[in-house]
Amino acid sequence: MKRTLIGDLKEDKDARISGWAQSIRNTKYMIFVILKDRSGKIQVSIDKNEQSELAQALEGVLSNSILSFTGKMVKSEYVKNGGKEFLPTEVEVLSKSDALPIDETANIDTRMDYRWIDLRSEKNNLMLHVQSAFVEGMRAFLIREDFTEIHTPKLIGAASESGSDVFEVKYFDRKAYLAQSPQFYKQMAIASGLERVFEIAPAFRAENSNTNRHATEFTSFDLEFAYIDSYEDVMDLEEDLLIAGLTHVKDLYGEKIKELFDMDVVIPKKPFPRIKLQDLYQELHTRYGYEIPEHDIGDMNSEAEKLTGRYAMEEYGSEFIFVTGFAKAKRAFYHMRKNDIPEGFDLIWRGTEITTGAQREHRYEVLKSQAEEKGLGVDVAFYLEFFKYGCPPHGGFAIGVDRLTMLLLGLPSLKEEMFLFRGPSRLTP
Amino acid sequence: MKRTLIGDLKEDKDARISGWAQSIRNTKYMIFVILKDRSGKIQVSIDKNEQSELAQALEGVLSNSILSFTGKMVKSEYVKNGGKEFLPTEVEVLSKSDALPIDETANIDTRMDYRWIDLRSEKNNLMLHVQSAFVEGMRAFLIREDFTEIHTPKLIGAASESGSDVFEVKYFDRKAYLAQSPQFYKQMAIASGLERVFEIAPAFRAENSNTNRHATEFTSFDLEFAYIDSYEDVMDLEEDLLIAGLTHVKDLYGEKIKELFDMDVVIPKKPFPRIKLQDLYQELHTRYGYEIPEHDIGDMNSEAEKLTGRYAMEEYGSEFIFVTGFAKAKRAFYHMRKNDIPEGFDLIWRGTEITTGAQREHRYEVLKSQAEEKGLGVDVAFYLEFFKYGCPPHGGFAIGVDRLTMLLLGLPSLKEEMFLFRGPSRLTP
Repeated sequence: MKRTLIGDLKEDKDARISGWAQSIRNTKYMIFVILKDRSGKIQVSIDKNEQSELAQALEGVLSNSILSFTGKMVKSEYVKNGGKEFLPTEVEVLSKSDALPIDETANIDTRMDYRWIDLRSEKNNLMLHVQSAFVEGMRAFLIREDFTEIHTPKLIGAASESGSDVFEVKYFDRKAYLAQSPQFYKQMAIASGLERVFEIAPAFRAENSNTNRHATEFTSFDLEFAYIDSYEDVMDLEEDLLIAGLTHVKDLYGEKIKELFDMDVVIPKKPFPRIKLQDLYQELHTRYGYEIPEHDIGDMNSEAEKLTGRYAMEEYGSEFIFVTGFAKAKRAFYHMRKNDIPEGFDLIWRGTEITTGAQREHRYEVLKSQAEEKGLGVDVAFYLEFFKYGCPPHGGFAIGVDRLTMLLLGLPSLKEEMFLFRGPSRLTP
Repeated sequence: MKRTLIGDLKEDKDARISGWAQSIRNTKYMIFVILKDRSGKIQVSIDKNEQSELAQALEGVLSNSILSFTGKMVKSEYVKNGGKEFLPTEVEVLSKSDALPIDETANIDTRMDYRWIDLRSEKNNLMLHVQSAFVEGMRAFLIREDFTEIHTPKLIGAASESGSDVFEVKYFDRKAYLAQSPQFYKQMAIASGLERVFEIAPAFRAENSNTNRHATEFTSFDLEFAYIDSYEDVMDLEEDLLIAGLTHVKDLYGEKIKELFDMDVVIPKKPFPRIKLQDLYQELHTRYGYEIPEHDIGDMNSEAEKLTGRYAMEEYGSEFIFVTGFAKAKRAFYHMRKNDIPEGFDLIWRGTEITTGAQREHRYEVLKSQAEEKGLGVDVAFYLEFFKYGCPPHGGFAIGVDRLTMLLLGLPSLKEEMFLFRGPSRLTP
């Protein structure tokens, strides 16, 4: 018999259901199994006297085993949570579980060793679905907006941008490197005549640091689009993108997120507040007595981000705020500049930076001189070539998918959030 | 003024258009620019006497430059291709192109050096859009079918499956490796309680071979789903998946593909023909006098694939055919077996293998012994753990996105097809 999802069961109709035994309770006369599949769960009730073969088949079977039951769903006033139970005539043990080596109280590193067990919890399972929906909502928006999906290489010939944090790969008889971002290649796509492109792919950073917000490998949601008039267009697009993603998540999982994570999915209003860095410093000083440290002047740090989130909420009632007017010394050479100020922005959500975006410099001579000013002339020579044969004005940004989900659900770290976290001391499972 | 797409121009209304100068023809009295954007193209006509400033601004400007014109579209009986032209009052040169270093007659390796120019051709631009649509069509199908998107790590701690073709990464003070496929991790997702998962991500193979069908990095479309009854369910799903992808491509680009590539997008009918390897050998022998070489017995090779494509078309009028019943020595240890025969398949499309799929062995003891039989006991120990604490029956497959597009458009090699090809001697741009 074909499997029926638990959520689709009809009263008194023969059916076969399959799923995880969330619990197996063996009492004197009865065995009660809570069986769970992706559509829901149900109590399966077995009378040990009348159905001794079934009882025997379940002898020694532990929860977390995979079971398949044939039988009927019936209404029952004795059963809590739905008033339904499943009365089986047959059982098949599809997979037996050993006693679990961990439980939900284990610390995060132990849980990561057994991540596939850890991910089975209702919260973690929801988290994976939420991330998938967030990405899908944003991607569907881009496809409606005429964007094309590209797949750029992660194996690159030169340790570009900044050689220090790049992983080195043994590539036959020479060296290759792992791309830190698809930045150069999504711009190459613009020079290739694609007006609007996006990519969702792994990015790699060889940073030997252990923070809650960094991983050596993470999923980057990147986009770039042409014929913009200024970086304001880039911020406008990001607003629409995030609203589309959050709306999709809220529609599908808003209530569940509230229930399990006690977090509200808030759909932001357009436009998000936008503030210049100098004005922001002023506000943070006046309101919270915060002074940006000397070496961070022209930039943000995590303390400033946190206070900026607070300011955005207090002043505008907004979870989001764009910060503009960073110093050129603190920004990549390929950001376009106007009066020596980069035409770029950071987006802060709930007190954490989630995006750096900008209009890019598309004029070959200007770009070349900005690269040289940062001492990158030779390293990025291949990239500069992209701008010699016609390239429209364009801009874009990247969002870390994992960080986004972490913030949405109020999780304490990427370790909790990622399917499998990768850090300097974590390469398994 | 905001930019208007060329395809959206209305007669006699002020507008600004921006795009590539596909050609600039400077005659005695007139300059004619063919301007192209993602929506179409139009002739821009400038009277050199009456609009001397515009003519001057375009002095020395070569085709492939990026131009923006303000003016009006008018109907004109003198203009070919649409009977429209654009009469500008202003021009802005957004980006000047040097004389191109290549043209479309250059050989593939030279064109790859300047891939961003090569990709501007109408054919190549269509190719990128077609690949994006193919992936989108398949992905949208999976999302409708309740699949969850996952992102599994590409940095792995052990050179699993087969150590030989794996890239080694310098990972701080130790070694890591690049994943050849997400196989183990998508199965881990199943063991994590996700019933249906997919991933679209790069995969890496350190094969030092130069063929038309192999690259060291490629985009892999992977899926895995649980509670199947047999590998027939896996083939059924792949049929629906490909039909969804091809239908989406045909709807959007069917006519353009016919026009530019002279290829038909054929929507296959269900079920695709399915044949056992032994019977196939018989057919290839009887029909084409083909004998599989000794060392390939129990498997296919590219010659056999080609003839199998021919057989499928001649016998069933089908571009697709599933082949089953491979020898266990020729298949991965994690394929479930029945009577010692792997419960898996290859899918051949137009004479080339595009998928290997299977029901997976989910029973810990059986899986362990199959791994040991292949001498992999230690290497895959971490993977075997996934099956100790309950894991439902499941199966899946992978499709190479690039190979798929190559076959769809009848391209001669992956070099022609990929955004940026990567091979043993190709890491740039």
